[in-house]
Amino acid sequence: MHLDDLILVSIDDHIIEPADMFERHMPVRFKDDAPKYVRGGPDGVDHWEYQGQQTGNVGLNAVASWPHQEWDFDPVGQSEMRPGCYDLELRVKDMDANGVLASMCFPTFAGFNGMSLARSTVDEDLTKIVVSAYNDWHIDELAGEHPGRFLPLAILPVFDSPGMVAEVKRVAAKGCHAVSLPEAPYGVGLPAFDDDGYWNPVFKACEDLDVAVCLHIGGSFGLIQRPPNFMIDNLIILAPQLSAIVATDLILAGTFRKFPRLKVALSEGGIGWIGFFLDRLDRHVWNHSWTGLKIADEDITPSELWRRNFLGCFITDPSGLAVRERIGIDTIAWECDYPHSDSTWPRSPETVWDELQRVGASDEDIHKITWQNACRFFSFDPFQHRSQERSTVAGLRATATDVDVSETSRQTYKERYFANA
Amino acid sequence: MHLDDLILVSIDDHIIEPADMFERHMPVRFKDDAPKYVRGGPDGVDHWEYQGQQTGNVGLNAVASWPHQEWDFDPVGQSEMRPGCYDLELRVKDMDANGVLASMCFPTFAGFNGMSLARSTVDEDLTKIVVSAYNDWHIDELAGEHPGRFLPLAILPVFDSPGMVAEVKRVAAKGCHAVSLPEAPYGVGLPAFDDDGYWNPVFKACEDLDVAVCLHIGGSFGLIQRPPNFMIDNLIILAPQLSAIVATDLILAGTFRKFPRLKVALSEGGIGWIGFFLDRLDRHVWNHSWTGLKIADEDITPSELWRRNFLGCFITDPSGLAVRERIGIDTIAWECDYPHSDSTWPRSPETVWDELQRVGASDEDIHKITWQNACRFFSFDPFQHRSQERSTVAGLRATATDVDVSETSRQTYKERYFANA
Repeated sequence: MHLDDLILVSIDDHIIEPADMFERHMPVRFKDDAPKYVRGGPDGVDHWEYQGQQTGNVGLNAVASWPHQEWDFDPVGQSEMRPGCYDLELRVKDMDANGVLASMCFPTFAGFNGMSLARSTVDEDLTKIVVSAYNDWHIDELAGEHPGRFLPLAILPVFDSPGMVAEVKRVAAKGCHAVSLPEAPYGVGLPAFDDDGYWNPVFKACEDLDVAVCLHIGGSFGLIQRPPNFMIDNLIILAPQLSAIVATDLILAGTFRKFPRLKVALSEGGIGWIGFFLDRLDRHVWNHSWTGLKIADEDITPSELWRRNFLGCFITDPSGLAVRERIGIDTIAWECDYPHSDSTWPRSPETVWDELQRVGASDEDIHKITWQNACRFFSFDPFQHRSQERSTVAGLRATATDVDVSETSRQTYKERYFANA
Repeated sequence: MHLDDLILVSIDDHIIEPADMFERHMPVRFKDDAPKYVRGGPDGVDHWEYQGQQTGNVGLNAVASWPHQEWDFDPVGQSEMRPGCYDLELRVKDMDANGVLASMCFPTFAGFNGMSLARSTVDEDLTKIVVSAYNDWHIDELAGEHPGRFLPLAILPVFDSPGMVAEVKRVAAKGCHAVSLPEAPYGVGLPAFDDDGYWNPVFKACEDLDVAVCLHIGGSFGLIQRPPNFMIDNLIILAPQLSAIVATDLILAGTFRKFPRLKVALSEGGIGWIGFFLDRLDRHVWNHSWTGLKIADEDITPSELWRRNFLGCFITDPSGLAVRERIGIDTIAWECDYPHSDSTWPRSPETVWDELQRVGASDEDIHKITWQNACRFFSFDPFQHRSQERSTVAGLRATATDVDVSETSRQTYKERYFANA
């Protein structure tokens, strides 16, 4: 096997929602109530407006192609971005150029898990309609019009338990096998995962309909008190470390006792902490047997539960890959994170190949990690629309020799954008 | 090499302070002002009184020898404890029976890092005297009367920067090379480590006098918001995961730019998270070069800084040991944690030997991890008072064939205690 033979399915990327996303998906009589994209002038930053207020962020951390010294975490408008961030056809070209066969895209202005939309909600019934329209755009337009290139991912009206159940059922019927939820709901004003009345119906629907729950990092950062003068570096470094908190909360909430077939992906959570975490949990349940903790009705260890219910997700993770057998070789999946700063685009194949070779991964391990585990977990058939041969890094890159992946400044993008406008 | 040839130096154990600890160490005119040990009746729990109020805990989690179903986290009096918890001679015998040559003992009633004493302080000048008396007991009596068996560890008057400096100088002059500080001072009402006016003089004294700083887990648990119904398991599982937060805070505070020779041990922090953490930090400083983060004045990577300044400490850590080279083989040290629930006593040699064999550690690696790294880091000569041959697991256990290490109930200890009283 060679780098060119890699097949890459990324289960964490980010779409910058295009300005016209709601046009074909809001019911006609609510069309005027959909969130609106408001363009800034040459020096302004675009924003979305919903129910009379600014909501979410147009383009947080959408730094693809920028020189590193131009990066920041401020919101940015489309004019300064690499167009592949928000233009669906160019997004696919950017995937081709990076040898990525398929991608799962988290929202931006709506919040990774729909929380930005929820926060700016005045009329909950209207937001339920907006959430459905959002999902229809994602499933029918982003994924549907680019067959085999996107794993659909839905958001839910997180403020309403029955509304979430209804939306899970609706999107599952459309072939969507993943929903994004806040990783620490009690940290954002929602009931914790052990609130059975609130979450059980949602998890039950997900379990019954083979819909995996994606918990993306970032939502739990507010859980930790930071020192008075903390820096942005603090957040960037620690965000994936907090996935251990999220996993602990979920396991201790009894979630997998109640829903033994529920699948949970810790999106962008990294994998290097998982072996350590499972060592501790495995020891804990017998060493601290006095607490009476019961993580499952079956007689299984936490490590076995992990292999049954979880998917660990990484962008680059040399130490985690070195202990892949301890984590569970069938529970690890790769991510690209385009267009965010942690992404390895446009050299993802080189980066992940190098890491896998250094830890002596077999061809079988490589295929599991770069596509097979993700496809099984999210019930996604990668070769339904494209032969396996044409789905490799070499096969995809051959179709994208015209894509310029070189470093390009914000200013250059801006000039091009307004020249084309 | 065989299990019997192991040499074990544990840098994290816990002493239950004996009732008479202050008798020989408080200045005569303040003798009546020392903390007092107040015994409960047959059904009561002992406590310490200081400045008119109850302070700290007599014996938190001192579960050695108890059947697992009798464990809990409630404070317990001496009557129910294994006597090796608080009787210095019997402590040494318990170390012998477990093949442990030397031990670093953290306080109990004073708080792992002196915080319990600080919290119950009304008269700061008096507490400074108590802290010094505490340290004199630890250095002269616990360590001094059992030569070669204890690595001395001091606490500091954390509420007073010049007072801390004075105490560092005083204990260093007595041959003490370690102090215990709160791992997240801003979480317990103290200035954060980036408060130069407060901490720089302390770190300067530690650096100049070769005194390592020990940051024991537990002190940062209050930093994270927990779900409303969280269980004790949550705390037990997560405590070491938070060491990544502590290390991040300290590194980002510029501590090692200001004090490149300062040594920091993350006591009981585990090691399985460190490879993951360093992978992320190493990538962060070049990938996020835009933030301008400067962790050291020298041109070194975070991994190199780690190897220079930190000591990772573990009790049992199979996944961490598997990536010991990635963490840094010279930066890993073993702990016993007697008499707490996470301890491997009385089968520490068997446990750590088994873990080291499973990951294929060489004899050289084993010696570094079980004693050499700790002795170098804390400037401790293990064979000054005892030949290397008599310091092995076999050599020590041969002297302790009379020690009963079998499971013994709280009730049995209580009956024996009051029968002897």
